[in-house]
Amino acid sequence: MKFARLLDGKKETYGIVKGDRVASREEIVYSTGVPLPTRLGGFLFEGWLAEVNDRLDGLEYERGLSEYGIMAPIAEPPKIFCLAFNYADHAQDQDRSPPDEPVIVMKPRTALCGNGDDIVMPPFVKELDYEVELALIIGKRCRDVDVIGAKEAIFGYTILNDVSARDIQFRDGQFTRAKGLDTFAPCGPWITSADEVQDPGRLKMTTKVNGRARQDSSTSKMHIKPFEIVSKLSSSMTLEKGDIISTGTPSGVALNNPDSEYLAAGDEIEMEIEGLGVLRNTVRGTRE
Amino acid sequence: MKFARLLDGKKETYGIVKGDRVASREEIVYSTGVPLPTRLGGFLFEGWLAEVNDRLDGLEYERGLSEYGIMAPIAEPPKIFCLAFNYADHAQDQDRSPPDEPVIVMKPRTALCGNGDDIVMPPFVKELDYEVELALIIGKRCRDVDVIGAKEAIFGYTILNDVSARDIQFRDGQFTRAKGLDTFAPCGPWITSADEVQDPGRLKMTTKVNGRARQDSSTSKMHIKPFEIVSKLSSSMTLEKGDIISTGTPSGVALNNPDSEYLAAGDEIEMEIEGLGVLRNTVRGTRE
Repeated sequence: MKFARLLDGKKETYGIVKGDRVASREEIVYSTGVPLPTRLGGFLFEGWLAEVNDRLDGLEYERGLSEYGIMAPIAEPPKIFCLAFNYADHAQDQDRSPPDEPVIVMKPRTALCGNGDDIVMPPFVKELDYEVELALIIGKRCRDVDVIGAKEAIFGYTILNDVSARDIQFRDGQFTRAKGLDTFAPCGPWITSADEVQDPGRLKMTTKVNGRARQDSSTSKMHIKPFEIVSKLSSSMTLEKGDIISTGTPSGVALNNPDSEYLAAGDEIEMEIEGLGVLRNTVRGTRE
Repeated sequence: MKFARLLDGKKETYGIVKGDRVASREEIVYSTGVPLPTRLGGFLFEGWLAEVNDRLDGLEYERGLSEYGIMAPIAEPPKIFCLAFNYADHAQDQDRSPPDEPVIVMKPRTALCGNGDDIVMPPFVKELDYEVELALIIGKRCRDVDVIGAKEAIFGYTILNDVSARDIQFRDGQFTRAKGLDTFAPCGPWITSADEVQDPGRLKMTTKVNGRARQDSSTSKMHIKPFEIVSKLSSSMTLEKGDIISTGTPSGVALNNPDSEYLAAGDEIEMEIEGLGVLRNTVRGTRE
Protein backbone atom coordinates (compact mmCIF):
# COMPACT_ATOMS: atom_id res chain seq x y z
CA MET A 1 0.00 0.00 0.00
CA LYS A 2 0.93 3.61 -0.46
CA PHE A 3 0.39 5.97 2.46
CA ALA A 4 0.34 9.72 1.92
CA ARG A 5 0.25 12.57 4.42
CA LEU A 6 -2.23 15.00 2.98
CA LEU A 7 -3.48 18.52 3.31
CA ASP A 8 -7.26 18.84 2.89
CA GLY A 9 -7.72 22.59 2.65
CA LYS A 10 -5.85 23.68 5.76
CA LYS A 11 -6.41 20.44 7.67
CA GLU A 12 -3.77 17.73 7.93
CA THR A 13 -5.02 14.23 7.19
CA TYR A 14 -3.78 11.12 5.40
CA GLY A 15 -4.92 8.37 3.12
CA ILE A 16 -4.14 5.28 1.11
CA VAL A 17 -3.27 6.07 -2.50
CA LYS A 18 -4.27 3.87 -5.46
CA GLY A 19 -3.36 5.30 -8.86
CA ASP A 20 -4.75 8.82 -8.82
CA ARG A 21 -7.39 8.05 -6.17
CA VAL A 22 -7.33 8.27 -2.39
CA ALA A 23 -9.13 6.44 0.38
CA SER A 24 -8.93 9.10 3.06
CA ARG A 25 -8.59 8.59 6.80
CA GLU A 26 -12.27 9.53 7.12
CA GLU A 27 -13.21 6.82 4.62
CA ILE A 28 -11.07 4.24 6.44
CA VAL A 29 -12.74 5.18 9.75
CA TYR A 30 -16.18 4.93 8.12
CA SER A 31 -15.46 1.66 6.39
CA THR A 32 -13.78 -0.12 9.33
CA GLY A 33 -15.61 1.49 12.23
CA VAL A 34 -12.28 2.06 13.99
CA PRO A 35 -11.59 5.58 15.36
CA LEU A 36 -8.12 6.19 13.92
CA PRO A 37 -5.55 8.77 15.06
CA THR A 38 -5.55 12.04 13.13
CA ARG A 39 -1.88 11.80 12.13
CA LEU A 40 -0.28 9.35 9.69
CA GLY A 41 2.58 8.64 12.11
CA GLY A 42 0.13 7.45 14.74
CA PHE A 43 -1.77 5.34 12.21
CA LEU A 44 1.34 3.58 10.90
CA PHE A 45 3.47 3.22 14.01
CA GLU A 46 1.09 2.87 16.96
CA GLY A 47 -0.63 -0.34 15.93
CA TRP A 48 -3.68 1.09 14.12
CA LEU A 49 -2.74 -0.08 10.64
CA ALA A 50 -2.29 -3.61 12.02
CA GLU A 51 -5.69 -3.26 13.72
CA VAL A 52 -7.56 -2.45 10.49
CA ASN A 53 -5.31 -4.19 7.97
CA ASP A 54 -7.62 -7.12 7.16
CA ARG A 55 -10.65 -4.84 6.79
CA LEU A 56 -9.35 -2.62 3.97
CA ASP A 57 -10.57 -4.63 0.97
CA GLY A 58 -13.90 -2.86 0.69
CA LEU A 59 -12.47 0.67 0.86
CA GLU A 60 -13.83 3.29 -1.50
CA TYR A 61 -11.14 5.38 -3.15
CA GLU A 62 -13.63 8.18 -3.21
CA ARG A 63 -11.53 11.26 -3.85
CA GLY A 64 -8.94 12.31 -6.40
CA LEU A 65 -5.33 12.70 -5.26
CA SER A 66 -5.26 16.11 -6.96
CA GLU A 67 -7.84 17.40 -4.47
CA TYR A 68 -5.18 17.33 -1.77
CA GLY A 69 -1.85 18.92 -1.02
CA ILE A 70 0.86 16.34 -0.40
CA MET A 71 3.08 16.74 2.66
CA ALA A 72 6.34 15.04 3.60
CA PRO A 73 5.15 11.57 4.66
CA ILE A 74 6.75 11.65 8.12
CA ALA A 75 6.16 14.90 10.00
CA GLU A 76 8.60 14.53 12.85
CA PRO A 77 11.04 11.69 12.26
CA PRO A 78 13.25 11.04 15.29
CA LYS A 79 16.24 11.02 12.92
CA ILE A 80 17.02 11.57 9.25
CA PHE A 81 20.28 9.96 8.12
CA CYS A 82 21.85 10.39 4.70
CA LEU A 83 24.65 8.12 3.53
CA ALA A 84 27.62 9.72 1.81
CA PHE A 85 29.62 8.09 -1.00
CA ASN A 86 27.47 4.94 -1.16
CA TYR A 87 27.48 4.65 -4.98
CA ALA A 88 30.84 3.81 -6.52
CA ASP A 89 30.37 6.13 -9.52
CA HIS A 90 29.40 9.14 -7.39
CA ALA A 91 32.29 8.42 -4.99
CA GLN A 92 34.72 8.09 -7.91
CA ASP A 93 33.58 11.46 -9.26
CA GLN A 94 35.12 12.77 -6.03
CA ASP A 95 38.24 10.56 -6.23
CA ARG A 96 37.08 8.21 -3.51
CA SER A 97 36.03 4.63 -3.25
CA PRO A 98 32.81 3.88 -1.38
CA PRO A 99 33.46 3.04 2.28
CA ASP A 100 32.45 -0.36 3.70
CA GLU A 101 30.97 1.18 6.84
CA PRO A 102 28.17 3.72 6.39
CA VAL A 103 29.43 7.31 6.46
CA ILE A 104 26.46 9.33 7.64
CA VAL A 105 25.24 12.89 7.97
CA MET A 106 22.00 13.91 9.68
CA LYS A 107 19.38 16.34 8.42
CA PRO A 108 17.17 18.19 10.90
CA ARG A 109 13.42 17.62 10.62
CA THR A 110 13.02 21.32 9.80
CA ALA A 111 14.61 20.50 6.42
CA LEU A 112 11.67 18.33 5.35
CA CYS A 113 9.21 19.42 2.70
CA GLY A 114 6.71 17.56 0.56
CA ASN A 115 5.96 16.91 -3.07
CA GLY A 116 5.09 20.20 -4.77
CA ASP A 117 6.75 22.37 -2.13
CA ASP A 118 9.44 24.87 -3.07
CA ILE A 119 13.10 24.29 -2.31
CA VAL A 120 14.07 27.67 -0.91
CA MET A 121 17.53 28.91 -1.92
CA PRO A 122 18.83 31.70 0.35
CA PRO A 123 20.97 34.39 -1.33
CA PHE A 124 24.17 33.13 0.32
CA VAL A 125 23.93 29.72 -1.40
CA LYS A 126 25.66 29.73 -4.79
CA GLU A 127 26.05 26.04 -5.65
CA LEU A 128 22.73 24.28 -5.10
CA ASP A 129 22.68 20.61 -6.06
CA TYR A 130 20.20 17.70 -6.13
CA GLU A 131 20.67 14.05 -5.14
CA VAL A 132 18.01 11.41 -5.79
CA GLU A 133 18.03 8.78 -3.03
CA LEU A 134 16.08 5.73 -1.98
CA ALA A 135 14.92 6.38 1.60
CA LEU A 136 14.08 3.61 4.06
CA ILE A 137 11.39 4.19 6.67
CA ILE A 138 11.99 2.34 9.93
CA GLY A 139 8.84 0.78 11.40
CA LYS A 140 10.26 -1.02 14.40
CA ARG A 141 12.56 0.13 17.19
CA CYS A 142 15.73 -1.95 16.88
CA ARG A 143 19.36 -2.28 17.96
CA ASP A 144 22.04 -4.75 16.82
CA VAL A 145 19.94 -6.48 14.19
CA ASP A 146 21.29 -8.75 11.46
CA VAL A 147 20.14 -8.35 7.83
CA ILE A 148 17.04 -10.46 8.45
CA GLY A 149 16.09 -8.32 11.46
CA ALA A 150 16.90 -5.25 9.37
CA LYS A 151 14.48 -6.33 6.65
CA GLU A 152 11.76 -6.77 9.27
CA ALA A 153 12.50 -3.33 10.72
CA ILE A 154 11.86 -1.52 7.40
CA PHE A 155 8.25 -0.41 7.11
CA GLY A 156 8.55 0.98 3.62
CA TYR A 157 10.30 3.16 1.07
CA THR A 158 10.12 6.64 -0.37
CA ILE A 159 12.23 9.13 -2.34
CA LEU A 160 14.42 11.74 -0.68
CA ASN A 161 16.14 14.58 -2.50
CA ASP A 162 19.33 15.17 -0.50
CA VAL A 163 19.58 18.83 -1.51
CA SER A 164 23.09 20.13 -0.85
CA ALA A 165 24.75 23.55 -0.95
CA ARG A 166 28.12 22.46 -2.34
CA ASP A 167 29.82 25.77 -1.54
CA ILE A 168 28.94 25.46 2.15
CA GLN A 169 29.62 21.71 2.11
CA PHE A 170 33.24 22.02 1.06
CA ARG A 171 33.93 25.18 3.03
CA ASP A 172 32.67 23.52 6.23
CA GLY A 173 34.21 20.09 5.58
CA GLN A 174 31.40 18.64 7.69
CA PHE A 175 28.34 18.33 5.42
CA THR A 176 25.61 18.86 8.04
CA ARG A 177 24.85 22.58 7.61
CA ALA A 178 25.06 22.41 3.80
CA LYS A 179 22.43 19.67 3.78
CA GLY A 180 20.38 20.97 6.72
CA LEU A 181 18.81 24.19 5.50
CA ASP A 182 15.04 24.55 5.67
CA THR A 183 13.41 22.73 2.69
CA PHE A 184 16.65 20.86 1.83
CA ALA A 185 14.98 17.46 2.38
CA PRO A 186 12.07 17.09 -0.08
CA CYS A 187 10.59 13.70 0.67
CA GLY A 188 7.79 11.63 -0.81
CA PRO A 189 5.46 11.69 -2.55
CA TRP A 190 4.31 8.91 -0.18
CA ILE A 191 5.51 5.79 1.63
CA THR A 192 5.24 2.52 -0.28
CA SER A 193 5.01 -0.39 2.15
CA ALA A 194 7.84 -2.92 2.03
CA ASP A 195 5.59 -5.78 0.82
CA GLU A 196 5.12 -3.91 -2.49
CA VAL A 197 8.86 -3.62 -3.15
CA GLN A 198 10.24 -6.96 -4.18
CA ASP A 199 13.88 -5.95 -4.13
CA PRO A 200 14.90 -2.45 -2.95
CA GLY A 201 18.34 -3.17 -4.41
CA ARG A 202 17.00 -3.29 -7.98
CA LEU A 203 15.01 -0.13 -8.60
CA LYS A 204 15.53 2.28 -11.47
CA MET A 205 16.05 5.86 -10.34
CA THR A 206 16.16 9.09 -12.32
CA THR A 207 16.41 12.84 -11.90
CA LYS A 208 15.25 15.34 -14.47
CA VAL A 209 15.84 19.07 -14.20
CA ASN A 210 13.49 21.12 -16.38
CA GLY A 211 12.68 17.90 -18.23
CA ARG A 212 16.32 17.06 -19.06
CA ALA A 213 17.79 13.81 -17.69
CA ARG A 214 20.51 14.36 -15.11
CA GLN A 215 20.69 11.16 -13.02
CA ASP A 216 19.75 7.82 -14.61
CA SER A 217 20.80 4.85 -12.56
CA SER A 218 19.62 2.00 -10.35
CA THR A 219 19.73 1.16 -6.67
CA SER A 220 21.66 -1.95 -7.80
CA LYS A 221 24.73 0.29 -7.93
CA MET A 222 24.60 0.92 -4.19
CA HIS A 223 27.73 -0.23 -2.38
CA ILE A 224 26.26 -1.07 1.05
CA LYS A 225 22.79 -2.53 0.35
CA PRO A 226 19.60 -1.41 2.13
CA PHE A 227 19.29 -4.25 4.68
CA GLU A 228 23.02 -4.11 5.39
CA ILE A 229 22.82 -0.36 5.97
CA VAL A 230 20.15 -0.83 8.63
CA SER A 231 22.03 -3.72 10.21
CA LYS A 232 25.32 -1.81 10.31
CA LEU A 233 23.77 1.40 11.65
CA SER A 234 21.92 -0.57 14.32
CA SER A 235 25.24 -1.82 15.67
CA SER A 236 26.07 1.80 16.59
CA MET A 237 22.72 3.17 17.62
CA THR A 238 19.10 2.45 18.36
CA LEU A 239 16.83 2.96 15.36
CA GLU A 240 13.32 4.19 16.08
CA LYS A 241 9.91 4.08 14.41
CA GLY A 242 9.73 6.83 11.84
CA ASP A 243 13.48 7.18 11.32
CA ILE A 244 14.37 7.97 7.71
CA ILE A 245 17.56 6.48 6.29
CA SER A 246 18.49 7.84 2.89
CA THR A 247 20.85 5.51 1.10
CA GLY A 248 23.07 7.74 -1.03
CA THR A 249 23.02 9.01 -4.60
CA PRO A 250 24.48 7.81 -7.89
CA SER A 251 26.49 9.81 -10.41
CA GLY A 252 24.93 12.69 -12.32
CA VAL A 253 24.72 15.49 -9.78
CA ALA A 254 25.88 18.94 -10.85
CA LEU A 255 29.04 18.73 -8.73
CA ASN A 256 32.09 17.65 -10.76
CA ASN A 257 29.97 17.26 -13.87
CA PRO A 258 30.95 19.44 -16.83
CA ASP A 259 27.58 18.89 -18.54
CA SER A 260 25.43 19.86 -15.59
CA GLU A 261 24.72 23.17 -13.99
CA TYR A 262 23.88 24.01 -10.42
CA LEU A 263 20.23 24.66 -9.68
CA ALA A 264 18.77 28.13 -10.14
CA ALA A 265 15.52 29.78 -9.11
CA GLY A 266 12.65 28.43 -11.19
CA ASP A 267 14.24 25.06 -11.93
CA GLU A 268 11.85 22.14 -11.77
CA ILE A 269 13.23 18.89 -10.36
CA GLU A 270 11.51 15.59 -10.99
CA MET A 271 12.80 12.46 -9.27
CA GLU A 272 11.45 9.01 -9.89
CA ILE A 273 12.23 5.66 -8.31
CA GLU A 274 10.59 2.57 -9.77
CA GLY A 275 7.36 1.78 -7.95
CA LEU A 276 7.67 4.66 -5.49
CA GLY A 277 6.20 7.50 -7.55
CA VAL A 278 7.55 10.85 -8.68
CA LEU A 279 8.78 13.62 -6.37
CA ARG A 280 8.47 17.10 -7.90
CA ASN A 281 9.81 20.34 -6.46
CA THR A 282 10.70 23.77 -7.76
CA VAL A 283 13.59 25.97 -6.66
CA ARG A 284 12.64 29.36 -5.33
CA GLY A 285 15.12 32.15 -4.62
CA THR A 286 14.34 34.21 -1.53
CA ARG A 287 14.93 37.50 -3.34
CA GLU A 288 12.71 36.92 -6.36
CA MET B 1 15.90 28.52 38.39
CA LYS B 2 17.24 25.05 37.78
CA PHE B 3 14.91 22.50 36.18
CA ALA B 4 15.70 18.80 36.39
CA ARG B 5 14.05 15.85 34.70
CA LEU B 6 13.82 13.24 37.42
CA LEU B 7 13.13 9.59 37.97
CA ASP B 8 11.08 8.89 41.11
CA GLY B 9 11.37 5.14 41.44
CA LYS B 10 10.31 4.10 37.93
CA LYS B 11 8.16 7.17 37.29
CA GLU B 12 9.35 10.12 35.22
CA THR B 13 8.75 13.50 36.83
CA TYR B 14 10.58 16.82 37.20
CA GLY B 15 11.29 19.53 39.68
CA ILE B 16 12.98 22.78 40.54
CA VAL B 17 16.37 22.26 42.18
CA LYS B 18 17.75 24.50 44.94
CA GLY B 19 21.07 23.34 46.40
CA ASP B 20 20.52 19.69 47.26
CA ARG B 21 16.74 20.05 47.59
CA VAL B 22 13.92 19.65 45.08
CA ALA B 23 10.45 21.14 44.75
CA SER B 24 8.84 18.38 42.77
CA ARG B 25 6.15 18.73 40.10
CA GLU B 26 3.66 17.39 42.64
CA GLU B 27 4.66 20.14 45.10
CA ILE B 28 4.37 22.82 42.40
CA VAL B 29 0.89 21.54 41.50
CA TYR B 30 -0.11 21.49 45.19
CA SER B 31 1.34 24.92 45.92
CA THR B 32 -0.04 26.72 42.83
CA GLY B 33 -3.23 24.76 42.27
CA VAL B 34 -2.37 24.46 38.56
CA PRO B 35 -2.60 20.98 36.97
CA LEU B 36 0.79 20.80 35.24
CA PRO B 37 1.84 18.46 32.43
CA THR B 38 3.65 15.31 33.51
CA ARG B 39 6.75 15.99 31.36
CA LEU B 40 9.37 18.71 31.85
CA GLY B 41 9.28 19.61 28.13
CA GLY B 42 5.58 20.39 28.36
CA PHE B 43 6.06 22.42 31.55
CA LEU B 44 8.86 24.56 30.12
CA PHE B 45 7.81 25.00 26.51
CA GLU B 46 4.01 24.95 26.41
CA GLY B 47 3.34 28.00 28.57
CA TRP B 48 2.94 26.34 31.97
CA LEU B 49 6.06 27.78 33.57
CA ALA B 50 4.92 31.26 32.51
CA GLU B 51 1.48 30.47 33.99
CA VAL B 52 2.83 29.62 37.46
CA ASN B 53 6.01 31.71 37.45
CA ASP B 54 4.83 34.40 39.88
CA ARG B 55 3.43 31.85 42.32
CA LEU B 56 6.63 29.93 43.04
CA ASP B 57 7.91 31.95 46.02
CA GLY B 58 6.17 29.87 48.65
CA LEU B 59 7.35 26.50 47.28
CA GLU B 60 8.56 23.88 49.72
CA TYR B 61 11.76 22.15 48.61
CA GLU B 62 10.51 19.11 50.44
CA ARG B 63 12.66 16.32 49.08
CA GLY B 64 16.35 15.65 48.71
CA LEU B 65 17.85 15.60 45.22
CA SER B 66 19.55 12.30 46.09
CA GLU B 67 16.15 10.61 46.39
CA TYR B 68 15.79 10.85 42.60
CA GLY B 69 17.52 9.58 39.52
CA ILE B 70 18.50 12.41 37.17
CA MET B 71 17.64 12.09 33.48
CA ALA B 72 18.84 14.08 30.47
CA PRO B 73 16.89 17.34 30.86
CA ILE B 74 15.29 17.25 27.39
CA ALA B 75 13.83 13.87 26.48
CA GLU B 76 13.19 14.38 22.79
CA PRO B 77 14.91 17.48 21.44
CA PRO B 78 13.97 18.20 17.83
CA LYS B 79 17.68 18.69 17.10
CA ILE B 80 21.01 18.38 18.86
CA PHE B 81 23.80 20.38 17.19
CA CYS B 82 27.46 20.29 18.19
CA LEU B 83 29.89 22.89 16.93
CA ALA B 84 33.27 21.71 15.70
CA PHE B 85 36.52 23.68 16.10
CA ASN B 86 34.94 26.59 18.00
CA TYR B 87 37.81 27.07 20.49
CA ALA B 88 41.05 28.34 18.98
CA ASP B 89 43.26 26.12 21.17
CA HIS B 90 41.32 22.92 20.37
CA ALA B 91 41.29 23.83 16.65
CA GLN B 92 45.03 24.55 16.71
CA ASP B 93 45.68 21.15 18.29
CA GLN B 94 44.36 19.87 14.96
CA ASP B 95 46.28 22.39 12.82
CA ARG B 96 43.21 24.48 12.06
CA SER B 97 41.97 27.92 12.87
CA PRO B 98 38.40 28.23 14.14
CA PRO B 99 35.95 28.95 11.30
CA ASP B 100 33.86 32.13 11.32
CA GLU B 101 30.68 30.29 10.35
CA PRO B 102 29.51 27.49 12.63
CA VAL B 103 30.64 24.06 11.44
CA ILE B 104 28.06 21.68 12.84
CA VAL B 105 27.40 18.01 13.38
CA MET B 106 24.13 16.57 14.68
CA LYS B 107 23.68 13.94 17.35
CA PRO B 108 20.57 11.73 17.35
CA ARG B 109 18.32 11.92 20.40
CA THR B 110 19.07 8.24 21.05
CA ALA B 111 22.58 9.38 22.08
CA LEU B 112 21.27 11.28 25.12
CA CYS B 113 21.82 10.07 28.65
CA GLY B 114 21.64 11.77 32.02
CA ASN B 115 23.85 12.49 34.99
CA GLY B 116 24.93 9.23 36.60
CA ASP B 117 24.22 7.13 33.51
CA ASP B 118 26.93 4.98 31.96
CA ILE B 119 28.65 5.90 28.72
CA VAL B 120 28.57 2.58 26.90
CA MET B 121 31.69 1.77 24.86
CA PRO B 122 31.10 -0.98 22.27
CA PRO B 123 34.04 -3.33 21.62
CA PHE B 124 34.71 -1.83 18.16
CA VAL B 125 35.49 1.62 19.62
CA LYS B 126 39.16 1.95 20.51
CA GLU B 127 39.68 5.71 20.95
CA LEU B 128 36.94 7.07 23.19
CA ASP B 129 37.24 10.76 24.04
CA TYR B 130 35.39 13.39 26.10
CA GLU B 131 34.56 17.03 25.29
CA VAL B 132 33.07 19.38 27.87
CA GLU B 133 30.71 21.86 26.18
CA LEU B 134 28.32 24.64 27.14
CA ALA B 135 24.93 23.69 25.67
CA LEU B 136 22.22 26.23 24.86
CA ILE B 137 18.58 25.23 25.19
CA ILE B 138 16.29 26.97 22.70
CA GLY B 139 12.98 28.11 24.22
CA LYS B 140 11.43 29.91 21.28
CA ARG B 141 10.90 28.88 17.67
CA CYS B 142 12.94 31.28 15.56
CA ARG B 143 14.42 31.95 12.13
CA ASP B 144 16.75 34.74 10.94
CA VAL B 145 17.22 36.37 14.33
CA ASP B 146 19.93 38.89 15.20
CA VAL B 147 21.98 38.56 18.40
CA ILE B 148 19.28 40.29 20.45
CA GLY B 149 16.63 37.91 19.12
CA ALA B 150 19.06 35.06 19.70
CA LYS B 151 19.46 36.00 23.36
CA GLU B 152 15.67 36.02 23.75
CA ALA B 153 15.42 32.61 22.08
CA ILE B 154 17.71 30.91 24.62
CA PHE B 155 15.74 29.44 27.50
CA GLY B 156 18.73 28.26 29.47
CA TYR B 157 22.02 26.42 29.68
CA THR B 158 23.37 23.03 30.57
CA ILE B 159 26.48 20.87 30.13
CA LEU B 160 26.91 18.41 27.27
CA ASN B 161 29.70 15.88 26.99
CA ASP B 162 30.28 15.54 23.24
CA VAL B 163 31.60 11.97 23.53
CA SER B 164 33.49 11.02 20.37
CA ALA B 165 35.00 7.81 19.02
CA ARG B 166 38.11 9.32 17.41
CA ASP B 167 38.95 6.18 15.43
CA ILE B 168 35.53 6.21 13.72
CA GLN B 169 35.60 10.01 13.40
CA PHE B 170 38.77 10.14 11.35
CA ARG B 171 38.05 6.98 9.38
CA ASP B 172 34.63 8.33 8.35
CA GLY B 173 35.73 11.93 7.75
CA GLN B 174 32.18 12.97 8.59
CA PHE B 175 31.91 13.06 12.39
CA THR B 176 28.24 12.10 12.75
CA ARG B 177 28.46 8.37 13.42
CA ALA B 178 31.47 8.74 15.74
CA LYS B 179 29.51 11.19 17.90
CA GLY B 180 26.12 9.53 17.48
CA LEU B 181 26.37 6.21 19.29
CA ASP B 182 23.86 5.45 22.04
CA THR B 183 24.88 7.25 25.30
CA PHE B 184 27.41 9.49 23.50
CA ALA B 185 25.56 12.66 24.57
CA PRO B 186 25.52 12.82 28.38
CA CYS B 187 23.63 16.01 29.20
CA GLY B 188 22.74 17.86 32.38
CA PRO B 189 22.58 17.62 35.29
CA TRP B 190 19.74 20.13 34.76
CA ILE B 191 18.82 23.27 32.84
CA THR B 192 19.75 26.58 34.44
CA SER B 193 17.44 29.32 33.18
CA ALA B 194 19.07 32.15 31.22
CA ASP B 195 18.24 34.80 33.85
CA GLU B 196 20.66 33.06 36.27
CA VAL B 197 23.58 33.19 33.83
CA GLN B 198 24.90 36.72 33.62
CA ASP B 199 27.32 36.10 30.77
CA PRO B 200 27.43 32.68 29.06
CA GLY B 201 30.66 33.84 27.42
CA ARG B 202 32.53 33.98 30.77
CA LEU B 203 32.05 30.66 32.54
CA LYS B 204 34.83 28.45 33.89
CA MET B 205 34.68 24.90 32.57
CA THR B 206 36.59 21.81 33.62
CA THR B 207 36.82 18.09 32.96
CA LYS B 208 38.30 15.61 35.40
CA VAL B 209 38.86 11.97 34.59
CA ASN B 210 39.25 9.79 37.70
CA GLY B 211 39.80 12.99 39.66
CA ARG B 212 42.65 14.26 37.47
CA ALA B 213 42.21 17.57 35.63
CA ARG B 214 42.06 17.19 31.84
CA GLN B 215 40.24 20.27 30.53
CA ASP B 216 40.50 23.58 32.43
CA SER B 217 39.29 26.54 30.43
CA SER B 218 36.56 29.14 30.06
CA THR B 219 33.74 29.80 27.62
CA SER B 220 35.50 33.15 27.05
CA LYS B 221 37.81 31.25 24.69
CA MET B 222 34.95 30.42 22.33
CA HIS B 223 35.46 31.82 18.83
CA ILE B 224 31.83 32.31 17.77
CA LYS B 225 29.99 33.43 20.94
CA PRO B 226 26.69 31.88 22.15
CA PHE B 227 24.25 34.55 20.88
CA GLU B 228 26.14 34.78 17.58
CA ILE B 229 25.96 31.00 17.16
CA VAL B 230 22.17 31.05 17.50
CA SER B 231 21.87 34.03 15.18
CA LYS B 232 24.10 32.49 12.52
CA LEU B 233 22.43 29.06 12.67
CA SER B 234 19.02 30.70 12.45
CA SER B 235 19.98 32.23 9.10
CA SER B 236 20.20 28.68 7.70
CA MET B 237 17.42 26.91 9.51
CA THR B 238 14.46 27.20 11.83
CA LEU B 239 15.33 26.60 15.47
CA GLU B 240 12.66 24.97 17.61
CA LYS B 241 11.75 24.80 21.29
CA GLY B 242 13.87 22.17 22.97
CA ASP B 243 16.71 22.26 20.42
CA ILE B 244 20.10 21.75 22.06
CA ILE B 245 23.08 23.63 20.62
CA SER B 246 26.40 22.56 22.04
CA THR B 247 29.03 25.22 21.52
CA GLY B 248 32.30 23.34 21.11
CA THR B 249 35.10 22.25 23.40
CA PRO B 250 38.43 23.77 24.49
CA SER B 251 41.84 22.11 24.50
CA GLY B 252 42.60 19.17 26.78
CA VAL B 253 40.82 16.25 25.15
CA ALA B 254 42.76 12.99 24.80
CA LEU B 255 43.15 13.43 21.03
CA ASN B 256 46.54 14.91 20.08
CA ASN B 257 47.51 15.24 23.72
CA PRO B 258 50.61 13.32 24.77
CA ASP B 259 49.70 13.60 28.48
CA SER B 260 46.17 12.25 28.15
CA GLU B 261 44.86 8.82 27.51
CA TYR B 262 41.69 7.74 25.79
CA LEU B 263 38.85 6.66 28.05
CA ALA B 264 38.64 3.08 29.29
CA ALA B 265 35.95 1.05 31.02
CA GLY B 266 35.55 2.18 34.62
CA ASP B 267 36.77 5.75 34.04
CA GLU B 268 34.79 8.39 35.90
CA ILE B 269 34.26 11.68 34.10
CA GLU B 270 33.29 14.80 35.97
CA MET B 271 32.48 17.95 34.03
CA GLU B 272 31.71 21.27 35.64
CA ILE B 273 30.66 24.59 34.17
CA GLU B 274 30.40 27.56 36.51
CA GLY B 275 26.85 27.92 37.84
CA LEU B 276 25.49 24.97 35.86
CA GLY B 277 26.42 22.10 38.18
CA VAL B 278 28.50 18.97 37.71
CA LEU B 279 27.83 16.23 35.15
CA ARG B 280 29.16 12.82 36.20
CA ASN B 281 29.27 9.68 34.08
CA THR B 282 31.19 6.43 34.11
CA VAL B 283 32.45 4.51 31.07
CA ARG B 284 31.18 0.98 30.76
CA GLY B 285 32.54 -1.56 28.29
CA THR B 286 29.91 -3.84 26.79
CA ARG B 287 32.06 -6.93 27.32
CA GLU B 288 32.92 -6.46 30.98
